[in-house]
Amino acid sequence: MRHSGSGDRDAGLSEFELIERFFQKRTLHRDDVIVGIGDDGAVLRVPAGVDLVMAVDTLVSGVHFDGDAPADAIGHKALAVNLSDLAAMGAEPAWATVALTMPHADTAWLDGFSSGLLNLAQRYGLEVIGGDTTRGPLTISVQICGTAPGGAAIRRRGARPGDLIYVSGSLGDAGLGLQARRGRILLDPESERFCCERLDRPQPRIKEGIALRGIASAAIDISDGLAGDVAKLLKASDVGATLQLDQIPLSPAVRRHVDASGDWHLPLAFGDDYELCFTVPAQQRDRLDAAAAEFDSPIQCIGSIEHETGLRCIREDASAYILPRDGYDHFREHS
Amino acid sequence: MRHSGSGDRDAGLSEFELIERFFQKRTLHRDDVIVGIGDDGAVLRVPAGVDLVMAVDTLVSGVHFDGDAPADAIGHKALAVNLSDLAAMGAEPAWATVALTMPHADTAWLDGFSSGLLNLAQRYGLEVIGGDTTRGPLTISVQICGTAPGGAAIRRRGARPGDLIYVSGSLGDAGLGLQARRGRILLDPESERFCCERLDRPQPRIKEGIALRGIASAAIDISDGLAGDVAKLLKASDVGATLQLDQIPLSPAVRRHVDASGDWHLPLAFGDDYELCFTVPAQQRDRLDAAAAEFDSPIQCIGSIEHETGLRCIREDASAYILPRDGYDHFREHS
Repeated sequence: MRHSGSGDRDAGLSEFELIERFFQKRTLHRDDVIVGIGDDGAVLRVPAGVDLVMAVDTLVSGVHFDGDAPADAIGHKALAVNLSDLAAMGAEPAWATVALTMPHADTAWLDGFSSGLLNLAQRYGLEVIGGDTTRGPLTISVQICGTAPGGAAIRRRGARPGDLIYVSGSLGDAGLGLQARRGRILLDPESERFCCERLDRPQPRIKEGIALRGIASAAIDISDGLAGDVAKLLKASDVGATLQLDQIPLSPAVRRHVDASGDWHLPLAFGDDYELCFTVPAQQRDRLDAAAAEFDSPIQCIGSIEHETGLRCIREDASAYILPRDGYDHFREHS
Repeated sequence: MRHSGSGDRDAGLSEFELIERFFQKRTLHRDDVIVGIGDDGAVLRVPAGVDLVMAVDTLVSGVHFDGDAPADAIGHKALAVNLSDLAAMGAEPAWATVALTMPHADTAWLDGFSSGLLNLAQRYGLEVIGGDTTRGPLTISVQICGTAPGGAAIRRRGARPGDLIYVSGSLGDAGLGLQARRGRILLDPESERFCCERLDRPQPRIKEGIALRGIASAAIDISDGLAGDVAKLLKASDVGATLQLDQIPLSPAVRRHVDASGDWHLPLAFGDDYELCFTVPAQQRDRLDAAAAEFDSPIQCIGSIEHETGLRCIREDASAYILPRDGYDHFREHS
């Protein structure tokens, strides 16, 4: 329907011109894009023998980011969380569409937003092939499409008893950064910078995901917290696991927080980590170690897959650690 | 970031379960979908020689539909406006992702919404392959993907001087329906039912778009109003056109409104028509007439393409009709 809001700051810019100005002219161009932004749809040519991998993620102002966050950080994150889904599937980024709902046509904001998004796209050879700009509360949906050789995409459901469980990078940094920004916790300036950078500009593990094709038996990206996301992988694979709490990789800042508070909520259940959790059959361990030498971040073995369903966690002294009920959920209350 | 809203009506439903319950179990399943809803991404296999066509459209509550509209009508429309983009490209629907932002996990609303969307999807053999459910103001982004034989997708930019301009169906019905619903205009009950149905449940011209491959030189779907959308097609094709006002197809209700008011705003500039506007070289006219015999709605020749750029419109007596400045735009003021 054709309701309308009130006066625009920049009433001269049509929807079409907005998309054109900020995305069409500045996105990189791929040979497999026959028609990009500017028609009713994009037209794409997929090589034979290649599978497509598609995902969608939405960021809502006030839910996934603060409305006054820098526009380029929002643009970066809107694409990064989608790239992280491709990484978990072992897919190579190809194209994305951007559905942007915003209260008014704010060209300065759009300039920052598109720069943050397109700089990250450029790094991964991704073309923005379409978009839609509508008036409303600030909401960004990015739909992403990548490619993998036929049958090579990594799924959640391939984990088998005996497989080792790994995570990339470190967990809980984004949560600690948010706590610091909210003034709930005091960090030294260097730790705060590090944790806020992890919160605002997650680095998708694309290279790692591609290298894990044929090595990992299952994978998931950690967006809702390690405990909840591992539980999803286990459920999809119809297996269980035991994690070793002392093996979970923590940055020095999160390590200090956990040691001081005894609270594992941030690394286990806060989420927003955008690291990979994956399982590897024991006989693939040498191939994994060789591949990991090229990774941008270290990987760490944190446990193993078992027949018995459910997720268990043990301390260094082998005593049981009771896991938080589940990961973050956008439709559940969160402390 | 991990802010949170307040209490849910249905706090027991996680995001994952929401998507699973309402879409995964009820969408139809296509052979080319290797992995559907339930992993980090969907995995799709595209036959050789086929081009992909992708589009995205967002509906925002209070902007594109009234918040209290029936949920199934919102679900229908969210997919229909995207199918209409595929229709304009001559593409056959294949897959869609649904990014749904809603204030709380309202299962009754979701039931209606998903029914409306999936019933339409079923009719066109489309599988919902992914989704994302987030908390926030009601906003729906559907990203759609279709297929066309390599090189066969119809674009906006192929119109040439001498080509005839056609539209399908009738224009202005949705606008008149909204005026009636708002109490700004009084219609007889049958006209109001017809116009509100056109507003709430547009029927995408998929069959027509596919039949126009190799016949139409250019096409666009009429979402923002005939005048504005024809102007986009002309600009993309670097040509101009003259339309004959008396040839623009109107339903009896809109005909009466235009005759009584002398106001052509509804059929020319309101939008929400989701009809096709396309151009056809004169030598393709016989093929078009043969194809049109199978169409669900009549088509009407409303003018022709000319060298001189710009859009002109003439009355039956050959006098010039001054067109409204442009179509509806979500970032411009609208009366």
